[in-house]
Amino acid sequence: MKVIVDRKNRKYIVHDKEFHSEKGLIPEEDIVNAKVGDVLETHLGKKYTVIEPNINDYIDLMKRNCSIVLPQDLGLITGLTGIGYGSKIVESGSGAGGSLLFFANIVGPAGHVYSYEIREDFIKVIQENIDGTDFNNITLYNQDVTEGFEQEDHSIDLVFLDLPKPSEVIEDAYRILKTGGFIAVYTPYIEQFQIVSKVLAKNSFKHIAIREGNVREIEIKNNKTRPNTRMPGHTGYITFARKL
Amino acid sequence: MKVIVDRKNRKYIVHDKEFHSEKGLIPEEDIVNAKVGDVLETHLGKKYTVIEPNINDYIDLMKRNCSIVLPQDLGLITGLTGIGYGSKIVESGSGAGGSLLFFANIVGPAGHVYSYEIREDFIKVIQENIDGTDFNNITLYNQDVTEGFEQEDHSIDLVFLDLPKPSEVIEDAYRILKTGGFIAVYTPYIEQFQIVSKVLAKNSFKHIAIREGNVREIEIKNNKTRPNTRMPGHTGYITFARKL
Amino acid sequence: MKVIVDRKNRKYIVHDKEFHSEKGLIPEEDIVNAKVGDVLETHLGKKYTVIEPNINDYIDLMKRNCSIVLPQDLGLITGLTGIGYGSKIVESGSGAGGSLLFFANIVGPAGHVYSYEIREDFIKVIQENIDGTDFNNITLYNQDVTEGFEQEDHSIDLVFLDLPKPSEVIEDAYRILKTGGFIAVYTPYIEQFQIVSKVLAKNSFKHIAIREGNVREIEIKNNKTRPNTRMPGHTGYITFARKL
Amino acid sequence: MKVIVDRKNRKYIVHDKEFHSEKGLIPEEDIVNAKVGDVLETHLGKKYTVIEPNINDYIDLMKRNCSIVLPQDLGLITGLTGIGYGSKIVESGSGAGGSLLFFANIVGPAGHVYSYEIREDFIKVIQENIDGTDFNNITLYNQDVTEGFEQEDHSIDLVFLDLPKPSEVIEDAYRILKTGGFIAVYTPYIEQFQIVSKVLAKNSFKHIAIREGNVREIEIKNNKTRPNTRMPGHTGYITFARKL
Repeated sequence: MKVIVDRKNRKYIVHDKEFHSEKGLIPEEDIVNAKVGDVLETHLGKKYTVIEPNINDYIDLMKRNCSIVLPQDLGLITGLTGIGYGSKIVESGSGAGGSLLFFANIVGPAGHVYSYEIREDFIKVIQENIDGTDFNNITLYNQDVTEGFEQEDHSIDLVFLDLPKPSEVIEDAYRILKTGGFIAVYTPYIEQFQIVSKVLAKNSFKHIAIREGNVREIEIKNNKTRPNTRMPGHTGYITFARKL
Repeated sequence: MKVIVDRKNRKYIVHDKEFHSEKGLIPEEDIVNAKVGDVLETHLGKKYTVIEPNINDYIDLMKRNCSIVLPQDLGLITGLTGIGYGSKIVESGSGAGGSLLFFANIVGPAGHVYSYEIREDFIKVIQENIDGTDFNNITLYNQDVTEGFEQEDHSIDLVFLDLPKPSEVIEDAYRILKTGGFIAVYTPYIEQFQIVSKVLAKNSFKHIAIREGNVREIEIKNNKTRPNTRMPGHTGYITFARKL
Repeated sequence: MKVIVDRKNRKYIVHDKEFHSEKGLIPEEDIVNAKVGDVLETHLGKKYTVIEPNINDYIDLMKRNCSIVLPQDLGLITGLTGIGYGSKIVESGSGAGGSLLFFANIVGPAGHVYSYEIREDFIKVIQENIDGTDFNNITLYNQDVTEGFEQEDHSIDLVFLDLPKPSEVIEDAYRILKTGGFIAVYTPYIEQFQIVSKVLAKNSFKHIAIREGNVREIEIKNNKTRPNTRMPGHTGYITFARKL
Repeated sequence: MKVIVDRKNRKYIVHDKEFHSEKGLIPEEDIVNAKVGDVLETHLGKKYTVIEPNINDYIDLMKRNCSIVLPQDLGLITGLTGIGYGSKIVESGSGAGGSLLFFANIVGPAGHVYSYEIREDFIKVIQENIDGTDFNNITLYNQDVTEGFEQEDHSIDLVFLDLPKPSEVIEDAYRILKTGGFIAVYTPYIEQFQIVSKVLAKNSFKHIAIREGNVREIEIKNNKTRPNTRMPGHTGYITFARKL
């Protein structure tokens, strides 16, 4: 897989075969031989630069079947739980696999991401999206997460849940977490985190904290600076807790 | 290094020698043999649980000589630049080394973090803090970053700057970044990002975006829910841009 | 009543009698004759400027027995309901009378503010605070507001509630409001506005909107600009609705 | 002037003459005799309720030629400066007259609003909008405000500026303000308030504070509560200061 950008910074994934743009084609050979920084040209003269592919580029371009957790929220989870190279992560409610791939990119070959998804149509999309990458640190379970996690006791660093009713799996999440491990539960609605935080407390989780991350963008036009007049008002709440 | 917590969830780093608490001591042997999840007891009966050490635990407890970039902001950078296992990162203005260790923890042994710090007293603290970890993917330069980065052209995925005058090194940052690589410039003040974003544009950076991440905490007490009445009003602005 | 400020901009209410400061006294005669803009001096030389007294100055300095609704939230209510000269307002949960006096100052002699307070000790404080002003457009009821408002049907422009259980009086609030009149319900907690907005809908109120006003302060020091690093995280939610 | 609403809560201003809707007409006589709360019906059966007209209703419906300062920001100014019945206000940059009418509605017959506008086409629109009301506490000056205010020294409670270059009139604003009076300067951009706050300080203003008011709306749908996913990211900054 390679990622190329045109002069308007539109990105495209290319595989090792002929690429058809609206303005001509690039032959397979050119693509196979291209290195990051190279400029490729269609037979009609449209130019594309090969860029270092990035996990967010891939997630942006991959197949979607639903809304996904935003990079800013996945970043907040990464920042506040301190996961990194070698971490073991369990997640459920992956949607099209965005968070799954984001985490797989961080934990690397020494880590692992285990993902549970009940719907077969979602599993198909996620599997396709995984197949487009080189990751081999992912295990996908097509099963009902409320029937329990397959992981062993005290084996996991982070459980990430993006489910309509996350509280049903909190007890089993506690079981599989290492002492010191984190749970992060993403919920759009207030009623959800109210239940989640109660169930977390009942299950001996500590340091329970409900957080909402907001990113404000500042614009500078003609030497005039101000916050954008439109911003996302809300993505979701993330309830964090720790097994201590 | 191990991290232990008491019943009030206060954390302590312990090394493989006798640990002295305000309520008695834990013998060296007990500490050496302790595994995550074990409970250690002082000779006066105070109990501590051994937890899975986490990069944020370490950063919280390590030696400080200055304020540090918060995990929420390091998370935002991680989320929006898509760095992960194997990434090559250059940073400058590391302070006590918090961001350095945070990134080293993510990029793992296949990645590398190169850090520039001009002040010798800071270098000493940073080196001590690195020595307390097992990372061997860090290179520390005690030199003036405005004299140029040591890295080769097109070799770096992310340049992170936390400097009073970051614009002086932006040209050279462009040089060392891979096509597709990111720069992220942390600045507390508006006047700073105004200059930074201009200099980024002059140096051919694309997708220049100034962002401010805010994290709001929600509290639930006696079944009453509301945002905390006190919140941090501002940490800093992060200016992102990409070499394309 | 006059308001004077010292060189450090600390404000004091003075009445037509001798004023004792920590640095000497100002004789009664000087105070009686003082006009806005005059500088008064104690016998020990401390100087005070007489300023145009403002309703917020008075509320700041008057007797308190509890927290009060902030001027920014009273301003939001004023802005969004369009009350002004001549408006008739009913309120309950006045605390020390801050909102009462704020509204009385706006509606003027052609308007009126009717305030309900069940607790006798609060009534005493409120009455004292009213007595310190010249308003004669205020009626204070020492009675349980859940037993009903004394006002006639279709006679009121705004009902403002700052009560623990505001929903009990919403039906009667609807009765006394003019067609086109507003209700504004101030509640610190999410659980409260959830009930309030349901009860408003049940009672035929229209344009129900829950709003949270936040004021961010920006600081400039040594030509460096940024938002204050500390800000109030939350005051309260205000649920607005209209009788249409 | 009367304001009527249809079943979908759309508002219309009606004057004492026949009203033409898209679904028939209401005869002049019905409108002349209508009282607040009455239901009027077109000859085709469409129903409208007569509501208590409110200054915001009028501003919403009046002729516009430009963007206006939002009620939430006018409310913030009202709340933080404590203006009310009888206040004397000078303003400039009124646009279509929205802030002018908002303030006129608050200060009442004992107060006054003096408004300066340089552009003749704007003056025409503002005058038309004033003519649609009953206010006779407004003086409109079609003149360049940088040539000075017509008001006497120490006569004004609030100067409100919504101008591209407000700093040019700050010195004269200081002159006309009472001791204790306020200035409030509305500016969309950071560069503007940076200059404004400097010029305010140079002109002896005290308590200089730059504030940004944000209003967040909360939605409840199907018993699910969350902040709206879209919100206005920024209206403007308001720099407050006081003559002390």
